[in-house]
Amino acid sequence: MKALLMMGCPELPVQTAIGLYIANKLNKEGFEVTIAGNKAAVSLLLNSDPEKHYIKKLIDLDRCIGALAEKEIEFDLGFVFIHSDSGISYLATLKSLSKAKTVAVIFGKEIEPLIEASGDSMIIAAKAVHNPTSLRARIDEVKSWAALTK
Amino acid sequence: MKALLMMGCPELPVQTAIGLYIANKLNKEGFEVTIAGNKAAVSLLLNSDPEKHYIKKLIDLDRCIGALAEKEIEFDLGFVFIHSDSGISYLATLKSLSKAKTVAVIFGKEIEPLIEASGDSMIIAAKAVHNPTSLRARIDEVKSWAALTK
Repeated sequence: MKALLMMGCPELPVQTAIGLYIANKLNKEGFEVTIAGNKAAVSLLLNSDPEKHYIKKLIDLDRCIGALAEKEIEFDLGFVFIHSDSGISYLATLKSLSKAKTVAVIFGKEIEPLIEASGDSMIIAAKAVHNPTSLRARIDEVKSWAALTK
Repeated sequence: MKALLMMGCPELPVQTAIGLYIANKLNKEGFEVTIAGNKAAVSLLLNSDPEKHYIKKLIDLDRCIGALAEKEIEFDLGFVFIHSDSGISYLATLKSLSKAKTVAVIFGKEIEPLIEASGDSMIIAAKAVHNPTSLRARIDEVKSWAALTK
């Protein structure tokens, strides 16, 4: 099983922490995990996990979208990190280019419009900017990510 | 050798990433590393490193200051993460309560006044908000943290 985590601009501190937290859960479930991020997101991830205990594959976000469009890569499960409209765009892009089951990971101060815009994706959402505890609680409610792909 | 990392409110995404990056370097040099943070800082660290590969001891920031004041704990090297005046206050607190050699890790958009306010501490500073690459470069210029404590 293959999972993708898509991360745009990391304005909010919770993004990197929750990304690594989800990656660890997926690794432990046996997923092959790829994280795609923009330059700042990738740098935050690499500095947070310098020995790559949690990060297995890390690619540039634009390259990832290109490779999805060219059908060079495909995933069973795709997490999109959303705290603004640009996150909603990435979710729409993933939905149009991949057959992956999509999960919208929504955080920030104003989450309601983002939840509404996420359509039929699975929603993991919490008001969280600096403290990821509430978002983590939503993630921990999911007992098996593999089960979602079936 | 014992090192302390002090982290206040994590408004800027680089704080957690650079904290874990420095902790890893210190662990590898054989330091016994304690990270002290406020609630949000601690939660970001624990979610970023869920298996505690980098985090060894983690304590509440206020409890840490109390224990320093009571002389229950002491350190050889103390890093204070500074992106606002509150960081400068923590640096002053550490200087007054400990004999540790202090390192001011300064980041954010307006770093000059913070550098000026850090006095005779060692300064590691870069304009960095979302992307820690420039700050990491300053850290990598230090070949041995242990040498600083001598």
